[in-house]
Amino acid sequence: MYAVILAGGGGTRLWPLSRPDRPKPFLPLLGERSLLRATFDRVLPALAGPEDVAVVVDRRHVALVRAELPEIPARNVLAEPVGRNTAAAVALAAVALERAGDEVMAVLPADHLVVDENGFRALLARAAAVARAADRPLVTLGIAPTGPETGYGYVVAGDPRAEAGAHAVRRFVEKPPADAAAALLAGPDAVAWNAGIFLWRRDAILDALEASAPDILAAVRAGVAAGAAALDAAYATVRATSIDYAVMEPASVAGRVAMLRADVGWSDLGSWAALRDALVARAVEAGEPAGAVGSGPRRDVGSEGTLVLAGERLVVTLGLRDTIVVDTPEALLVCAADRSQEVRAIAEELARAREDDS
Amino acid sequence: MYAVILAGGGGTRLWPLSRPDRPKPFLPLLGERSLLRATFDRVLPALAGPEDVAVVVDRRHVALVRAELPEIPARNVLAEPVGRNTAAAVALAAVALERAGDEVMAVLPADHLVVDENGFRALLARAAAVARAADRPLVTLGIAPTGPETGYGYVVAGDPRAEAGAHAVRRFVEKPPADAAAALLAGPDAVAWNAGIFLWRRDAILDALEASAPDILAAVRAGVAAGAAALDAAYATVRATSIDYAVMEPASVAGRVAMLRADVGWSDLGSWAALRDALVARAVEAGEPAGAVGSGPRRDVGSEGTLVLAGERLVVTLGLRDTIVVDTPEALLVCAADRSQEVRAIAEELARAREDDS
Repeated sequence: MYAVILAGGGGTRLWPLSRPDRPKPFLPLLGERSLLRATFDRVLPALAGPEDVAVVVDRRHVALVRAELPEIPARNVLAEPVGRNTAAAVALAAVALERAGDEVMAVLPADHLVVDENGFRALLARAAAVARAADRPLVTLGIAPTGPETGYGYVVAGDPRAEAGAHAVRRFVEKPPADAAAALLAGPDAVAWNAGIFLWRRDAILDALEASAPDILAAVRAGVAAGAAALDAAYATVRATSIDYAVMEPASVAGRVAMLRADVGWSDLGSWAALRDALVARAVEAGEPAGAVGSGPRRDVGSEGTLVLAGERLVVTLGLRDTIVVDTPEALLVCAADRSQEVRAIAEELARAREDDS
Repeated sequence: MYAVILAGGGGTRLWPLSRPDRPKPFLPLLGERSLLRATFDRVLPALAGPEDVAVVVDRRHVALVRAELPEIPARNVLAEPVGRNTAAAVALAAVALERAGDEVMAVLPADHLVVDENGFRALLARAAAVARAADRPLVTLGIAPTGPETGYGYVVAGDPRAEAGAHAVRRFVEKPPADAAAALLAGPDAVAWNAGIFLWRRDAILDALEASAPDILAAVRAGVAAGAAALDAAYATVRATSIDYAVMEPASVAGRVAMLRADVGWSDLGSWAALRDALVARAVEAGEPAGAVGSGPRRDVGSEGTLVLAGERLVVTLGLRDTIVVDTPEALLVCAADRSQEVRAIAEELARAREDDS
């Protein structure tokens, strides 16, 4: 088994901490380690050695990856000339990493939280066994939903498979509106959140790309075969789309996808509120004060449900409820936790304004 | 008439903006001007010229006063070796400024807000006329209460005087608990908040100090007569107490105090919530957005009742309710507006912790 960590993505949802020159995978949001490093540590040593881990990353951030993961061979850092979403990234890893066709590739986003790391490793091992079944399914991990979230895609389970806990996947549902999410949860089918964590044999994903996204596979193959300049040319025109949309949805219709339920304390840390929730849960579990969680020099009196990421300066909070405070040298964000999904739009608007100014 | 501006006080209630080296009177809390400058401008030119304005201030802040008020003569800046509350400050002004006994002195705290400046000037002129009456009363301005505030002292009115709108003062009530404040408002007597703005003839306040605080008057007289070193010695031992407690309370018992109702949009800006209220009221009056008032580089989406004092950096606020955000190079405060009275205690605790560290 080998692991491909996807370390792309801009991360404007975690503005002002995540920035173009230091996106989310490189932030130590949960403590000392960056999210990328935590993702790497999570698969070692039980599942893979350093030489079995690769990272797909924007060319501008290769040095950051080398600094975070000095153990992995240089050839395992796959630099994209530009981000083109996950379909191209997966195709690049499937083509460029020379592995046997029957080896199982685990695809892991670099910016997630997993609380139960031992459970996660055991789950990956079981998922790899499913991927090795005779029908070579594309395996996805399904997260047990805690509510009708609109920030996640959903996986709808079909018939059970022979492997314990595994099901066929009937269909994928892209991030639904609130009423559709509620209807999914209330419906007759078992559903799960799509974590974006996949396991498949190398030959299976190459076949699936050939079947439903041949243009992407061909472009990446041409780029890899002919060297860096060719990869630039390939990425200049390759279609930017997600692996979910380009491969998993059509493959599920063809009965080629399986899922395993994951109950390992997962979060995509996709908003400040999600990070707040993760840190509050961790504090509660550790028996520590959970009213104002965070990092940096802080002093709190009587706040609840509050996240404070302090920077250089002391941050004093007093009597806040469900509030996010993120202090960086460039900007300060103070927002209601239940509106943290709107941070992305504000960050993008500010970036546009800066461009207009320059 | 001449004016004595009291520019002492530490202002820990407006931490982290107010600091020992730059206390509240020197902050431009309401716009371009410092509160001291605004207090000065408020009496000119109708009531007094620059040579008729004096400032009592801690010796460490004399240079700040000179910079803010370059028009006033150097001898009108009365430097205290150390703050000893308002009784000593008033005594210093009454002794050191050589004025005729029948001249009226107006005592004005340097850190208040007055919205209706024309109305305020007219009120001071009327109060000066009362002070010139044959019985030489000590005159205080009484603010019409808007609720049972516990942050203010109260003045209880007695019989009407001959001058229009003036009453005798029956007694002063120091900052009362909430139930006592409510009882005062519900009681049979007319009551007002004590604004700490006083007018009296010079001979009247000297007589009143002699009657009820002779130790303070004697210490200050000895210090002024014998030069700077003597003033240091006098202030080292002089009793630290307020003019309200040392003079106004006993004088009211003796029937020597009068009050005039003031309805001029006054606030003592004694907490971040009070500043928020003042800026919201000003924004509403000007027809401007009032959801997130403040100063500095700001961007707000959908907040209400929120004060943002930004510093160098952009402050983005999103969906806040009744929240105070104060960003300074040294520290950041984010607090619930209804708990801003607790800021003082936190600031004092932090100051003690710094002392313990050093």
